[in-house]
Amino acid sequence: MPSNKTQPARGMRDFLPADVRRREYVIGVIREVYERYGFEPLETPAVENIETLMGKYGEEGNQLIFKILKRGVHESTGEADLALRYDLTVPLARVVAEYRDKLPKFFKRYQIQPVWRADRPARGRFREFYQCDVDVLGSKSMVVEAEICAAVSDVLERLGFDDFVIVLNHREILRGILEVSGVTEEKQADALIVIDKSEKIGKDGLRRELVERGVFSEESVDDFFERFGRLAETHVGPAFDIPESRTREFEKQQQEEMNSSWLDKLSSSLDQHEGGKLGIKAVRQILDLSQNSPARGRIRFHPSLARGLSYYTGAILEVGLNIGDFRGSIGGGGRYDNLVGMFLGQDVPACGFSLGLERIIVVMTEREMFPAGLVTSPAEVMVTVWNEESVLNSIALASELRAAGLRVDLYPEADKVGKQFKYASARGIPFVAVLGDDERERGEVSIKDMKSGKQRSVKREDVASVLRNWEG
Amino acid sequence: MPSNKTQPARGMRDFLPADVRRREYVIGVIREVYERYGFEPLETPAVENIETLMGKYGEEGNQLIFKILKRGVHESTGEADLALRYDLTVPLARVVAEYRDKLPKFFKRYQIQPVWRADRPARGRFREFYQCDVDVLGSKSMVVEAEICAAVSDVLERLGFDDFVIVLNHREILRGILEVSGVTEEKQADALIVIDKSEKIGKDGLRRELVERGVFSEESVDDFFERFGRLAETHVGPAFDIPESRTREFEKQQQEEMNSSWLDKLSSSLDQHEGGKLGIKAVRQILDLSQNSPARGRIRFHPSLARGLSYYTGAILEVGLNIGDFRGSIGGGGRYDNLVGMFLGQDVPACGFSLGLERIIVVMTEREMFPAGLVTSPAEVMVTVWNEESVLNSIALASELRAAGLRVDLYPEADKVGKQFKYASARGIPFVAVLGDDERERGEVSIKDMKSGKQRSVKREDVASVLRNWEG
Repeated sequence: MPSNKTQPARGMRDFLPADVRRREYVIGVIREVYERYGFEPLETPAVENIETLMGKYGEEGNQLIFKILKRGVHESTGEADLALRYDLTVPLARVVAEYRDKLPKFFKRYQIQPVWRADRPARGRFREFYQCDVDVLGSKSMVVEAEICAAVSDVLERLGFDDFVIVLNHREILRGILEVSGVTEEKQADALIVIDKSEKIGKDGLRRELVERGVFSEESVDDFFERFGRLAETHVGPAFDIPESRTREFEKQQQEEMNSSWLDKLSSSLDQHEGGKLGIKAVRQILDLSQNSPARGRIRFHPSLARGLSYYTGAILEVGLNIGDFRGSIGGGGRYDNLVGMFLGQDVPACGFSLGLERIIVVMTEREMFPAGLVTSPAEVMVTVWNEESVLNSIALASELRAAGLRVDLYPEADKVGKQFKYASARGIPFVAVLGDDERERGEVSIKDMKSGKQRSVKREDVASVLRNWEG
Repeated sequence: MPSNKTQPARGMRDFLPADVRRREYVIGVIREVYERYGFEPLETPAVENIETLMGKYGEEGNQLIFKILKRGVHESTGEADLALRYDLTVPLARVVAEYRDKLPKFFKRYQIQPVWRADRPARGRFREFYQCDVDVLGSKSMVVEAEICAAVSDVLERLGFDDFVIVLNHREILRGILEVSGVTEEKQADALIVIDKSEKIGKDGLRRELVERGVFSEESVDDFFERFGRLAETHVGPAFDIPESRTREFEKQQQEEMNSSWLDKLSSSLDQHEGGKLGIKAVRQILDLSQNSPARGRIRFHPSLARGLSYYTGAILEVGLNIGDFRGSIGGGGRYDNLVGMFLGQDVPACGFSLGLERIIVVMTEREMFPAGLVTSPAEVMVTVWNEESVLNSIALASELRAAGLRVDLYPEADKVGKQFKYASARGIPFVAVLGDDERERGEVSIKDMKSGKQRSVKREDVASVLRNWEG
């Protein structure tokens, strides 16, 4: 009985050849850039023990984790002992705890693998998606943050993006802002959730929700906005549309000035708050260390960036793009100095960034940013089968051309030659090699250029080099 | 509270950088060869609807499938609606049914992705492992089988294997043997299970189990062995140890003669059985079509190869290796003309082969078959940080060298320079670049060759080219 369910599972996708080639192109660029920054590849299993993941992503995260039933007799009890990887950071923390002695003092790793979340599927949001992570473990130096910003900028520039911004904030600055505004510790998490949405809900929404959640009273919220009104300003917004009259250099300078002015202002508001001051110092350092790197002028300090995950402890980062449907984040990260400690019992400083492959691909597809040279035909030449008797000869020719390094398709049946040509043409294969009886007798092969229609007879031993140097 | 469970889940593995590089090397070779044969890449989700997988792999398979709990309120009921991919063939069949109109008449795809089985973990057997599949859909021609044998031989030769054999049999031959021996239809599945183990259990075990399972009586089993005794002979055994006195060419000829003699003998035994005769014809064709391909002399016809999966309908294939602990299969495949029909309601002829990445890597590691040139150092050069004031300059140098295409690590902290050198040395980074105050003033960089210990001062703009052309 045929199953009528042949679609992939909800929120999951099949990638046909052209899709895979696009994905591999992007992954290839990301991998190459990360390697240039001295990051090394790591891979972890898709499946983790359930206790490794639970409790690391907050209550919402717990619900979105795909859980796997225990095998055997336990299957009927509904008990789950395994779960699908939810991000690449928690498995990294586990790996660092497990192999601490084998790993270098500074462990710089990249990891490009899928993760799974039982989110409600939406445009650009899937239940299986790839993350491309870089992380540095073992150093508290802000050089780490600067290197990560540089690597991410480098990746995006090499993919052809010029309109991205790396939004930067610091958890201690956020804490400072809230504490000097009189927000109690237990209300801070609520406040962060609201502030994190400021980009979406705007100034009025921000004010309303802060009051609704009891973070501020109707009176105190005005004080708050007087001091920190900029929190409500957009952070992935207009300032990185580049009007044609402005140069990139102008934009970069403008960005640097804006960062300085904001930091100066905040600095005076937080001058009595130790954590806030440390946060501002760290942000200034990261900006300073990025002066001579690909991240120069790409980083926008913005005090409203909060990021959902609870494990961040220092700098937090998010990359925004501003065009078309995908105004918004294509990746994020930050410093999480305590996460490894949850596994190791001893903290290891850490900072990382995760680029979302799916959105990058959506935007690159919309903007037609993929290089024309991406392999789109399944082969460089197709060898035809003249008749039943000559199959062996066709296989021999295909073998010779493959040994010479060509990508060769072999038509599998002794169909009419016209049909075989039509097939090659439909598949976009640029050349067809025909081994008819005449050609065989002369030790030749007839080559047809499918674009121009030109055909020419070539000595069998020359076929590969003729194809390589074909001139229309 | 630190978790003491930092190992990966049972039967799963973490791959540290050197492991990933080995895996990527092998995958790269496999991918390149498959592309030369005109195969195109396909990727499917790790997670499938549970009904897509259940019932496709037999009763044992059903039990080994990892099942995923329904989300939300259903989580407590223990109901599973999704499952982890168990192989790459069933998802392919689903894909072909779903996208039939988008796919070419002959769909040749490769797919290199992990699969998951809740098997008892053992040496070389994991719960998450990669399969490297090639399949051709849309043709019944034996050219397909021949091309698959050629591609697999090509892959293994390029990886450096010379002692593999592709064992070939045909389901119709097996059916013929059983039917002319008087085995009833309902006993045939049992018989195949036993015959499939003949390699392990030997002639005596085979005889005993065939009787125990009621396939034959004590009397009829002797008749059976008289006619088909060769079933009990080893098929991945001695004949592909290559004594030094023999050449590869001699081996190939010997293999061809052996195939002919077996086929002739079987042919007379099965001359009254239509299916058996068809099977023998198909096998002869595959052997014939492989005369001029990389599979020549690699294929061993053996009537005892049965293969577990129930979906095969024609030729069945298994690649055996014979050395060390891993005597046994490193991959298998065959023709399955009815599987797509289970999804589409209309049969599509299909034939494929799956190479097991894990065993290939185990054997290659044991035999030290990985090329010496595999990237083992995380960077080509490490830039040191002279002091806090010069960090910016070090970042600038690292950026320049990266832009020139070098893989560059940057020491993240202003540690003592001796400590930085020690670190680079421990990590196997061949060069260290030092930007001290003197060098900076002169616009130079000091380069140290970590192997020879030689150090030399180089103009800053020449660093990349000097490193590329360094001569000890």
